[in-house]
Amino acid sequence: MSVESIRSLIREIPDYPKPGVLFYDITPVLGDGPAFRELLELMVEPYRDAGITKVAGIEARGFTLAAPIAYILGAGFIPVRKAGKLPHDTHEETYELEYGVDSLEVHVDAASEGDRVLIVDDVIATGGTAGAVIALLNAVGAEVAGFSVFIELTFLNGRERMGAVPLHALLEF
Amino acid sequence: MSVESIRSLIREIPDYPKPGVLFYDITPVLGDGPAFRELLELMVEPYRDAGITKVAGIEARGFTLAAPIAYILGAGFIPVRKAGKLPHDTHEETYELEYGVDSLEVHVDAASEGDRVLIVDDVIATGGTAGAVIALLNAVGAEVAGFSVFIELTFLNGRERMGAVPLHALLEF
Repeated sequence: MSVESIRSLIREIPDYPKPGVLFYDITPVLGDGPAFRELLELMVEPYRDAGITKVAGIEARGFTLAAPIAYILGAGFIPVRKAGKLPHDTHEETYELEYGVDSLEVHVDAASEGDRVLIVDDVIATGGTAGAVIALLNAVGAEVAGFSVFIELTFLNGRERMGAVPLHALLEF
Repeated sequence: MSVESIRSLIREIPDYPKPGVLFYDITPVLGDGPAFRELLELMVEPYRDAGITKVAGIEARGFTLAAPIAYILGAGFIPVRKAGKLPHDTHEETYELEYGVDSLEVHVDAASEGDRVLIVDDVIATGGTAGAVIALLNAVGAEVAGFSVFIELTFLNGRERMGAVPLHALLEF
């Protein structure tokens, strides 16, 4: 299955979550066994020999890609969650996102010095979330080795907010 | 790595999310690469030859186990989400859970007749969530072939609310 076949499964939803926004619904890709498997293997390919020790996923859609990629790489999985959702001591970062303001947290012991972390998410838009997650992982002492997304919305310039962290996007819109 | 080694990584958090509740925090298991991999392979073992076409995961912790298990089985992944979080047309079920009342939704086209769906979650407590997800999947015409959890809180008798759907739990507390 090619990247174009995967792309053809993405469902465009106009005016979601608010008027004027075109939302790319990836659930038909996730729901198709061969497409889901191929998507994950294409996303993981650049990182197979990158010495990744942990993969961080962003609640909630990000978990659906980040957790299988952690499994494939034999790495641990780090959940990055909305404020108040993690039960242990956390670091918190507040950030601007495409549709408002939000906070994300990570457990203080989720990673440590020596860890090389790959961040995985479904979409990069303005890059506000990306910047916050990079800051959270740096706060616990980890090295962020890369940021891998299924879809990059290039017109929102999120790539510019990644600092020195290399971004890999499977598709661009 | 044995089931007991995995069990030893679970962190007990008293009085979370409210006084008197003992919360089992699985994030140290997810964060340990070998333990995470072994956990997933132990959970998937009973279903390798069960003809599963799709795996359903329940937002948000359930995604961290269900999505990799879908990948391992070569199945599609179905996100079951809190009300208002899915962008396309949905079915909705309201249910009682251990700490209150909530609603879950699934896309109307997430599965169809002929699909054999395995539901995967981190914990089964009172079984309210389990019953709602089974009802949602039946509503879209799918057969629910099984319900697999990491941890069963046996004293809450959730198993009694599963109807004819067989439950597999890796650990019991």
